[in-house]
Amino acid sequence: MTQEVQRAEEAIEKARAGKNVCLVSSGDPGIYGMAGVILELLKKTEIGKIPIEIIPGITAASSSASLLGAPLMNDFAVISLSDLLTDSKIIEKRIRSACQGDFVIVFYNPKSKKRIKPWQKAWQIMMRYRSPGTPVGIVRNARRANEEVTITSLKDMLAAREIDMGTTVIVGNSKTFIKGGYMVTPRGYKMEKNPL
Amino acid sequence: MTQEVQRAEEAIEKARAGKNVCLVSSGDPGIYGMAGVILELLKKTEIGKIPIEIIPGITAASSSASLLGAPLMNDFAVISLSDLLTDSKIIEKRIRSACQGDFVIVFYNPKSKKRIKPWQKAWQIMMRYRSPGTPVGIVRNARRANEEVTITSLKDMLAAREIDMGTTVIVGNSKTFIKGGYMVTPRGYKMEKNPL
Repeated sequence: MTQEVQRAEEAIEKARAGKNVCLVSSGDPGIYGMAGVILELLKKTEIGKIPIEIIPGITAASSSASLLGAPLMNDFAVISLSDLLTDSKIIEKRIRSACQGDFVIVFYNPKSKKRIKPWQKAWQIMMRYRSPGTPVGIVRNARRANEEVTITSLKDMLAAREIDMGTTVIVGNSKTFIKGGYMVTPRGYKMEKNPL
Repeated sequence: MTQEVQRAEEAIEKARAGKNVCLVSSGDPGIYGMAGVILELLKKTEIGKIPIEIIPGITAASSSASLLGAPLMNDFAVISLSDLLTDSKIIEKRIRSACQGDFVIVFYNPKSKKRIKPWQKAWQIMMRYRSPGTPVGIVRNARRANEEVTITSLKDMLAAREIDMGTTVIVGNSKTFIKGGYMVTPRGYKMEKNPL
C-alpha cells in the first residue's frame, strides 16, 4: 500500500519533469489498481497539464473465471476484503447486499497472514444466505507461475486450501452448478425452463 | 442471441469432427460471453472429450472505466439490463441490493430499440437511493470506431445521450467524484479522513 503511493509519486514527479512515464500495474490498473492512485494524487490543476492514458487490462475476476469455467455469465459483485482502506462494517454490509441480490460474488484480497477475520466473517454471512453446497472457485496465481485452481463448496470453503492476497475467490449464485469439472453460472434464469 | 447459440453449435460440431476451433467473442468471453454458451451446450460426457481453453479478455467494465478515469477503485456490481434471459423482477431486486450496498454499478446491455423500460426503471430505483448529483459515466463503442464518452449525473442520465446495446454505463457510489474531467471512486472510505 505505502509502496503503491511511493511508486505513483515517483511517476508523477518524472512526468512533471517532462518525461514520458509508464506505470505498470498487475491485472487491470482501473480495478483496485494504480489508475486511481495516480488520479487521486494529482491535483486538479495538474490533470490538464500532465496528460494521462489509462490502458485497461485483464482483471483477476476475468483471468480466474476463465480457469474455473464460466462462473460470471450472470450478474456479479466484486468485493475486496481488505479492511485497510474500507471499514469492515461497510464490507460486511456489501456481502449481505450481494447475497440478497443473488449476485455471484468475486472476492479480491481475501486474506493475508495478519488479516483473517474478514474472510471468516464473509463465510459466516454467506452461510446464512446461500446453500452450503453453493459452488466456490478458488484461484491462486491465475495465469502465472504456480497457478492453482480449486473448485469446492461454500460449506468447505474455509478449509479447502490456503488463501492469500494473490488468491481470487468466486462464490456462485443460487443457479451456479459444476459440470464436468467446470463451474458454470447459467446466463439466464429463464433458460432453466427453456434450456438451449 | 439465437445467432450466439448457432455459432457455438457450429464450433462444437467442427470440434467433434476433430478440428481445432477458435470461437471469437467480444470483450471477455467469460462475462456474458461465449464461454458459458459453449459450456452449457456441451453435454457433461463431452467436456472431457473435447478439450476447451477459455482465454480471458478485457471486459466492457474495464475498457469503459479506463476512458472515464478510475470509477472502479472500490467494490462494484455488474448488472445486465437485458430481460431476455433474466426476469425483470430479479434485475430490479439486484439494482436495489447494489444500491443498499453502496456499490458502484456497471450496466451492460442497458437499452435496445425495443427494450427501454428496464433502463427507465433502473433510473427510478437509483434515484430513490442515490443523490441526484451522483456521477454517471456513459461509454459507447469503447476502444472502437466512433467511441463516445460522456460524464453526467444520475439526475440527467436518461436524457444525457443516446444509449444502445453497445453502451456501458457506470454509476458512482456515494463517494465517487469528478475531478478535472475524470470520474474517480476513492479506493477507501478511510482515505477521506486521511487523504494520500
